[in-house]
Amino acid sequence: MLKGRLGCSLLSSTRRTFITRVTVTHQQAPRSLSLARYSSQSGSNSGSNNSSSTGRKDSWRTMAESDISRYLQETHDRVFDHNRAWAAEQSKNDPEFFTKLSAGQSPDYLWIGCSDSRIPAEQITGLEPGEAFVHRNIANLVVNTDLNVMSVINYAVRHLQVKHIVVCGHYGCGGVKAAMTPKDLGLLNPWLRNIRDVYRLHEKELDAISDETARYDRLVELSVVEQCRNVIKTAAVQQSYAKNQFPIVHGWVFGFGDGLLKDLKVDHEAMLHGIQKIYNLTE
Amino acid sequence: MLKGRLGCSLLSSTRRTFITRVTVTHQQAPRSLSLARYSSQSGSNSGSNNSSSTGRKDSWRTMAESDISRYLQETHDRVFDHNRAWAAEQSKNDPEFFTKLSAGQSPDYLWIGCSDSRIPAEQITGLEPGEAFVHRNIANLVVNTDLNVMSVINYAVRHLQVKHIVVCGHYGCGGVKAAMTPKDLGLLNPWLRNIRDVYRLHEKELDAISDETARYDRLVELSVVEQCRNVIKTAAVQQSYAKNQFPIVHGWVFGFGDGLLKDLKVDHEAMLHGIQKIYNLTE
Repeated sequence: MLKGRLGCSLLSSTRRTFITRVTVTHQQAPRSLSLARYSSQSGSNSGSNNSSSTGRKDSWRTMAESDISRYLQETHDRVFDHNRAWAAEQSKNDPEFFTKLSAGQSPDYLWIGCSDSRIPAEQITGLEPGEAFVHRNIANLVVNTDLNVMSVINYAVRHLQVKHIVVCGHYGCGGVKAAMTPKDLGLLNPWLRNIRDVYRLHEKELDAISDETARYDRLVELSVVEQCRNVIKTAAVQQSYAKNQFPIVHGWVFGFGDGLLKDLKVDHEAMLHGIQKIYNLTE
Repeated sequence: MLKGRLGCSLLSSTRRTFITRVTVTHQQAPRSLSLARYSSQSGSNSGSNNSSSTGRKDSWRTMAESDISRYLQETHDRVFDHNRAWAAEQSKNDPEFFTKLSAGQSPDYLWIGCSDSRIPAEQITGLEPGEAFVHRNIANLVVNTDLNVMSVINYAVRHLQVKHIVVCGHYGCGGVKAAMTPKDLGLLNPWLRNIRDVYRLHEKELDAISDETARYDRLVELSVVEQCRNVIKTAAVQQSYAKNQFPIVHGWVFGFGDGLLKDLKVDHEAMLHGIQKIYNLTE
């Protein structure tokens, strides 16, 4: 059960969000929810089942509040429906699946990616449950005073002994764009400032790119490389690599346009040697 | 190309990890790598293609260093193979898929889950790309001084206007067990101490559970509820809820034994009222 209901203010303040959401889920029928279904069921806007965005927008405007509440209830419940179906399918395909999953984890990969909803790490990489330890934050940043990501790296390297650490950014990153906007974003300022610090380090190269989108995309790449550097600066990674020759740190960028991962071909060993004059922690 | 190669020390220091890894991936054939395949190709341990864990262990012991290096190279390359296949499949199923994905995100859900590799948030919930903004850290903690998770919540609520915030823990959480172990874990101590703080709040109830596994599982649940409380303590959530009646905060626990999500039925509104005597930030 939902523990709250929508007030009328929802209709004005979040209409855009809902409309876009419905547009996206419309592609995923029959699994996902459809706004048209709500309208026709409530009878408040019969005949509005056309598939144009205008039609959906009109449907939403005239929806009864109870329909909106029902939408929220179903977006809650559908997750449990999907989860039961997923669990049943796994058991059907391999009756021992969950027994083996219960036995423990031993992932080869640590994935440090963006929180952006469009980049489900396991799906785009084809990695199965048990294969990738995952940390996702805004703009896939690795900050040395951030106990959250530092704990993740420490545990992944020292306890799970991962073989690969992937920092994966993506073109069109909202966090990167927000960071370069001359606007006070409150609590987000100190987090996003790390991206401005990357810009500062590469100011000359970035200023020379006149096209704004191209400049942001290059900043995305440069930030990923800088975050790889930050991973390698940790004692855990330096000491493990000196002893075991792993983990290897990789910088990748995901493109929404084609769904492909681009390998920035970070040279782990050269990067390590490059930073160790100042950041050596192996002794 | 991998930027590093394995030294001999790998054989002793990480044998257990690799063996478990191979055991797990063995279930996933033909997509994943198989140790037996390496051994038979290298000829270093012919006849070792039996599927018992002992057989695999022996195979690993006698593998040539070049095989190990090749294993690492392939665990890198296979991600790109899978990614290309995934992208092609998406385009085949819906030629407009990536065009629509490029248009932006408007997720209904914020997922705060554990980094554990066995809980791919989108797979177990059936949520599609674009539906869930995701943060994952060790033991799915929400700490008020953690700029990382606080930025995620702030952005998700104020900018993406998510409707649901899910804190999802899991039974058998290594982080929870580690937190209750009387051992100095270095950098991990301050992060995991948050779990001990939850224990302290519920000491009487937990001490009364004699079975250790049952006690840990209950601590997992209590910690999830406490993290929900921490989410609700934020100004972003309180103010948005006062204005819009969302987001709704949920506490769930994933079970490896059956793959099912358990809804702890956190009462968002009651919890909000409960904390506002002290934590009210709505004005």
